[in-house]
Amino acid sequence: MAWNRVAVVGAGLIKMGELFDQSYEQMASGAFEACVASVDKGFEPRQVEAAFLATQRGTLWGQEGIGGNTIPTAIGLTGIPCTRIENACPSGSDAFRVGAMAVASGVHDVVLVIGVEKMRDKSSEEGLLSRAAAGHPIFTRGETAPVLFAPFATRHMAEFGTTREMLASVAVKNHHNGKLDPYAHFQNEVTIDEVLASPAVCHPLHLLDCCPQTDGAAAVLLVSADRAHEFTDRPVFVAGFGVATDHPYLHEKDSFTEIKATPLAAERAYAMAGVGPDRIDCAEVHDCFTITEILDIEDLGFFAKGDGGRASLEGETAIGGRIAVNTSGGLLAKGHPIGATGVAQITECWWQLRGDAADRQVDTRNGYALQHNAGGRGSGVAVVNILTNRRDG
Amino acid sequence: MAWNRVAVVGAGLIKMGELFDQSYEQMASGAFEACVASVDKGFEPRQVEAAFLATQRGTLWGQEGIGGNTIPTAIGLTGIPCTRIENACPSGSDAFRVGAMAVASGVHDVVLVIGVEKMRDKSSEEGLLSRAAAGHPIFTRGETAPVLFAPFATRHMAEFGTTREMLASVAVKNHHNGKLDPYAHFQNEVTIDEVLASPAVCHPLHLLDCCPQTDGAAAVLLVSADRAHEFTDRPVFVAGFGVATDHPYLHEKDSFTEIKATPLAAERAYAMAGVGPDRIDCAEVHDCFTITEILDIEDLGFFAKGDGGRASLEGETAIGGRIAVNTSGGLLAKGHPIGATGVAQITECWWQLRGDAADRQVDTRNGYALQHNAGGRGSGVAVVNILTNRRDG
Repeated sequence: MAWNRVAVVGAGLIKMGELFDQSYEQMASGAFEACVASVDKGFEPRQVEAAFLATQRGTLWGQEGIGGNTIPTAIGLTGIPCTRIENACPSGSDAFRVGAMAVASGVHDVVLVIGVEKMRDKSSEEGLLSRAAAGHPIFTRGETAPVLFAPFATRHMAEFGTTREMLASVAVKNHHNGKLDPYAHFQNEVTIDEVLASPAVCHPLHLLDCCPQTDGAAAVLLVSADRAHEFTDRPVFVAGFGVATDHPYLHEKDSFTEIKATPLAAERAYAMAGVGPDRIDCAEVHDCFTITEILDIEDLGFFAKGDGGRASLEGETAIGGRIAVNTSGGLLAKGHPIGATGVAQITECWWQLRGDAADRQVDTRNGYALQHNAGGRGSGVAVVNILTNRRDG
Repeated sequence: MAWNRVAVVGAGLIKMGELFDQSYEQMASGAFEACVASVDKGFEPRQVEAAFLATQRGTLWGQEGIGGNTIPTAIGLTGIPCTRIENACPSGSDAFRVGAMAVASGVHDVVLVIGVEKMRDKSSEEGLLSRAAAGHPIFTRGETAPVLFAPFATRHMAEFGTTREMLASVAVKNHHNGKLDPYAHFQNEVTIDEVLASPAVCHPLHLLDCCPQTDGAAAVLLVSADRAHEFTDRPVFVAGFGVATDHPYLHEKDSFTEIKATPLAAERAYAMAGVGPDRIDCAEVHDCFTITEILDIEDLGFFAKGDGGRASLEGETAIGGRIAVNTSGGLLAKGHPIGATGVAQITECWWQLRGDAADRQVDTRNGYALQHNAGGRGSGVAVVNILTNRRDG
C-alpha cells in the first residue's frame, strides 16, 4: 500500500455548547475562521481546493441535503466542491479519512474537512429516534442510545467485576479535563459520588455516565506533505487510518464486552501507520457513555480486555498517566455534536502533537496520537485515525 | 496533478420502478449481485476493500444514518469500511468520484460504489419537502422541485425563443430510449402532443416534463488500473471528474439560463481528462425536468447557449445524432432514485464504452462518455465524471 503523505497544517473549533444563537452556517464559519487563524504561516481561504463536510443528522434538523451545498457559500468559498460524509457517530473521523485520501490521491493539494452539528434546536421528540427510524422494520422498537449501550456495561460488570465506581471514574476524569479545555461544553468537575447519585437513565448508566446533547463545529486543513512547509514548520502528519463495520443488529452480536468494529478498525490503522498501541502517547476516544471509554481503551489495545475499568479508576488514563485518554474532556464533557466530534478530536490530537495543549499537555515522547469514534445502530461502525509529529513516522 | 489511474471493471443495476416489495437492503443486494456478475473474469465479493454508499434521503425514510452501517452486512461483507456520501441529486456521481480518489490514493485497490434510494415507501407529505426543510429559515417557503426549475424554463423561453415543443422533444426522446432500456422505470413511448396535453404542474412544466419518483439501486466496481487485467480485458477508465458549487439561494443567482455549477464542474473534469466536449461520444445528463437537459447540453459545452431547445427538437441528441444524450432513458424515463441515479448513469456509460448497450449502442469513435448530475437547493451543486475506453485516455 503506497500512498502520498498528508499533513495537517491547521485545526480549530468553536466553543461547544447550546448554541441557539448561532445558525448551522454561522457555526461552520466560526470553525473555519479558527482553523484558518491556526495556520502558522498564514492561509488564504481561496487556497482550499475541495471540502468534505461531516453532518450526521442534517436532514432531520432543517438542513436537508444541503450541507454540502450551503457551506461553501457560508464560508466565502462558493464554487469549491463540498461533499457531505455521513457515517453515524464517526462521521467527522470518516470525513477526515476521506479528505486524507483526496490529498493522497494527488487530485487535490489542499482540502478542508469540516464537521458541523446542531443538536439542540429541536426537541428529542422531533429528532433522531422518534422520527428517523420510523418505517424501518427493526430500528423502530423504542431504542435509545443508553438502551443500546447499557447491556455492554452490565455484561462487562458481570464478566470482569467492573463496578459503577469504575464507570464513574471516567466521567470524573473527563470532566476534570474538560475544565482545562476552554472549548468544552461543561466546565465543571464532578465527583464519583455525584456520578453515582445522578438520576438513573438505564441501569447501570446514570445521567453523568451519559454525554450531553451539544452543538458544535470544528475544521482541519489537510495538505500534501511536500507542500506542508508553505504553511507551517510544525506539521502533523496522517500516519494511518482504518474503518470497520459490524453487524448492525444487537441480536446478531456475538459479544457484549467489546465493540467489535473498533479492534478491526484499529488493526487496519496500526498496520497502515506501522506502529502498535504501545507507541500511542494520547488518544481521543468515543466516550458517549462511561462504559464506552472502558470498552474503547481495551478494544484499541491500550489495556487488556476486562482491565479498562480498573485502569480508569486507578488514573492510568489521566493526563500524566500511562496513556492520556480524552484530554479534551471527551464526549462526556466537551460534548458530542455528532458530525463535529471526530474533527474536534483530531484538533485536540493536533494540539497535543504540536505541544499547544496548555494545561492539558501530554508528554508526546513517541510522537503519536490516536483518534477514535464508534457508532451506528449496534455500534456497527468504528473509525480510527492515527497522527504523528514525526517526519519519518 | 498526478494521480494513479482507476478502472471500472464491473457495473450493474436493478430494474427501476415502484419497488414496494423490496427493502432498501434487498435493492442494494440486487445491484451488488448484478455488478459482481458483470465482471468478465469473475469476481469474489471478499475482494472489496472499501465501499462508498450514495443515499440522499435515508434519514427521512426509515434508514437513519444506517446506510453505511447495514449495507456491508446486507451484501455479505460485514467488516468492510462503508461510507455514506450525500450530495443532493449528484450523491451517486460524487460517491463515484470519492471512490475513484480512494483507489487513486493507493490506500485501496478494489472499491465498491453503490447507490440506493427508496422514494416510494412514504408519501410526499411525509417526505423530503414537507418534513426536512422544517426549521430552516429560507428553505421552508413551500418550494418544490418544479417550482425551482420552472423559472429556468420561462427565462430560457423568453431569452432564446425556446418553445414547449422543444421541451417536450426531450421527454419524447428519453421515453423512446427508455423503452430500449430494460432497466428503465417507464417502458412506453410518448408523443409531443401527449407531453403538451399532460396536466400542468408549474408553468411551463407539465407532468411529462417531470421525472417520476422511482426506487432503484446501482453499483460499480473500481480498481487500480494496473490490476484491471485481473478482472477484464475490456476495462473502462476514469478520465476525469469535477465538482462545483453555486449559491444555494435562488435570489442570489445571477442567471436563470444556466445551472452555473455545471460549466464549472465540467471545466474541471475536462481539464483533468485532457479533452473537450467535442470528444464526448455520449452523455448521461441530469434531466429531472425537460428544461434541465436543455440547460445541461448547453452548460456542458455540447451546444451553444440558447441552442439546446432547437438541437433537441431536431434530433441532434438522439441515438445516432450529433451527440447521444441519455441513451438509458434518463431521469425522465429510467427514473431518479436519487442516490442510485449517478451510479446508474455510470453503468450506462460503461455499457456504451464497452459496446454492450444493445439497441441503444452509440458509435463511441472517440472513446469518451460523460456523466452529469446537478441538484441541491437552487441547483447549487453539479458533478461531472468522464470515462474512457482508451488505454491512453
